[in-house]
Amino acid sequence: MTQAEIKAVLTQAVATPNPLLQQLLNHALTGGKGLRPTLVLLCARFGMHDTLEVRQVAVAIELIHLASLIHDDVLDGATVRRNLPALHYLYGTVPAVLTGDYLFATAFGLLARSKKAVLTTVTEAIRSMCSGEIQQLTVTGPDTKAYFTYIGQKTATLFSAACRCGGILCRLKRPQQDYLARFGWHLGLAYQIVDDYLDLFGSAAKMDKPNRQDLARGILTLPVLRFLELSPEAARWQEKISRGLTATETEELIAAARHLNCDEYTAAAAGEQIALALEALDKLPVNPVQEDLALLASRTLDPLEELI
Amino acid sequence: MTQAEIKAVLTQAVATPNPLLQQLLNHALTGGKGLRPTLVLLCARFGMHDTLEVRQVAVAIELIHLASLIHDDVLDGATVRRNLPALHYLYGTVPAVLTGDYLFATAFGLLARSKKAVLTTVTEAIRSMCSGEIQQLTVTGPDTKAYFTYIGQKTATLFSAACRCGGILCRLKRPQQDYLARFGWHLGLAYQIVDDYLDLFGSAAKMDKPNRQDLARGILTLPVLRFLELSPEAARWQEKISRGLTATETEELIAAARHLNCDEYTAAAAGEQIALALEALDKLPVNPVQEDLALLASRTLDPLEELI
Repeated sequence: MTQAEIKAVLTQAVATPNPLLQQLLNHALTGGKGLRPTLVLLCARFGMHDTLEVRQVAVAIELIHLASLIHDDVLDGATVRRNLPALHYLYGTVPAVLTGDYLFATAFGLLARSKKAVLTTVTEAIRSMCSGEIQQLTVTGPDTKAYFTYIGQKTATLFSAACRCGGILCRLKRPQQDYLARFGWHLGLAYQIVDDYLDLFGSAAKMDKPNRQDLARGILTLPVLRFLELSPEAARWQEKISRGLTATETEELIAAARHLNCDEYTAAAAGEQIALALEALDKLPVNPVQEDLALLASRTLDPLEELI
Repeated sequence: MTQAEIKAVLTQAVATPNPLLQQLLNHALTGGKGLRPTLVLLCARFGMHDTLEVRQVAVAIELIHLASLIHDDVLDGATVRRNLPALHYLYGTVPAVLTGDYLFATAFGLLARSKKAVLTTVTEAIRSMCSGEIQQLTVTGPDTKAYFTYIGQKTATLFSAACRCGGILCRLKRPQQDYLARFGWHLGLAYQIVDDYLDLFGSAAKMDKPNRQDLARGILTLPVLRFLELSPEAARWQEKISRGLTATETEELIAAARHLNCDEYTAAAAGEQIALALEALDKLPVNPVQEDLALLASRTLDPLEELI
């Protein structure tokens, strides 16, 4: 199933006779790499499966991802998403929140046609995503353990759920589903670490979104946490970050972080997660699809070379 | 199943080890009449059913209602809900939107354990609710047809879905499910018309929420639409409403609307919907539960006497 085919199923799933809603949905569906649906489709290839069912679940998981992006952008006040104005920025908060809710409901409508285990896997993932975002609101000060818990709930849970669903749909045994879920979990962590790396060190010109957003919002990601661990002036920097950095201070922090090899450290941390993902993949019965999944996993690290 | 029992199942369903989230959920679950779960429980009594399954579906529908209230309050900027500060007003927009999402996911987790027809009925209802709210954003000027479409999608759809789910759970045949759904639909319309009546003519002292909110937000409900139909000065009033009424103007409008019997007209419209609901109920095979449902329906009109 190609990107275009995924897009076609997505478009069909969300169709509505309400013209404003359709406009909102079209905007919400523009762009995106479709990584999560690809994981469902690939993981389902470990065994016999119903192609239509797999497509519907893949699309449902993408819709849930899109819904959470829309709500996150409202909550973060983000203005750009996938090189376009964020939905709420263009249409307002009210239509954006409602579009997110509509996408959630549409996703569950698709999942209703599938196995119960799929539905419970996905609902647990969403509960975890919401719980993680709420937990994050209470984190104060640098805390690497809290960072990993947070990115686990925010990103890795849905990657992991996508892979497990693939496994459920091709009727893998539970321990094998668990390996797929573990693969997805570490892949998700790596993906988020790379994202956080790019937000700090990436070139805005090469990325499809503005960079240096996390620092501006006072969010301490892995490279900054590492920097605060190593810098002799950590206390002063932490104070500056909570107060809000000027553009010059941001550049200064990034240069100092590079000097202390926080970029390499972060890239290595992403690499470690990919290694753990591949280790889980190796535990599964030999199947040509492992190669595709391994390739997809290793490509997660490519932006570290391409976008800096 | 008593109110207290519904509350106990609700509380158990949303339990989380995240302390802030638990606090948010406790606040969200406070109060409420539990009308929608009661409809599921009563309608399921038309036949043999699995008590646990029925309870879970009843609770899931209440959770969906609560989630939509939380999101609506964020979107309307409402400050009070059920005599308490609205969730977003107390805790902020971010935790409130996420708590809503968490409740949606929890609800679907419960529905996942039930029949597919239940799940698709509920997801269709949510899609309709969101679509209705979005459609409403494009309505300009007085439009009674648009009003009925809107309150149908906003309120009657979920009442109707609750009743249909009850029918599905006790394995009623499709035409009988349709009568239950029709009963719920007209009951929901009546309920919303009563709510809109009270918002305009109700006594704030006797209600568990502030009154005269709709007019202040420029929302034209049935009594105001009727007033604009009858008043020789409709154009002037409409202009004033769009500009924003002063407290004195609001009182003036209400007095003028009473003078033109818009209160009686609105009460009669609610009564008509109850009559249609009872008519649908009569089509069902004779069963003692009809009496309970009829009583519940007629009580919908009680606040018209009690809260003005």
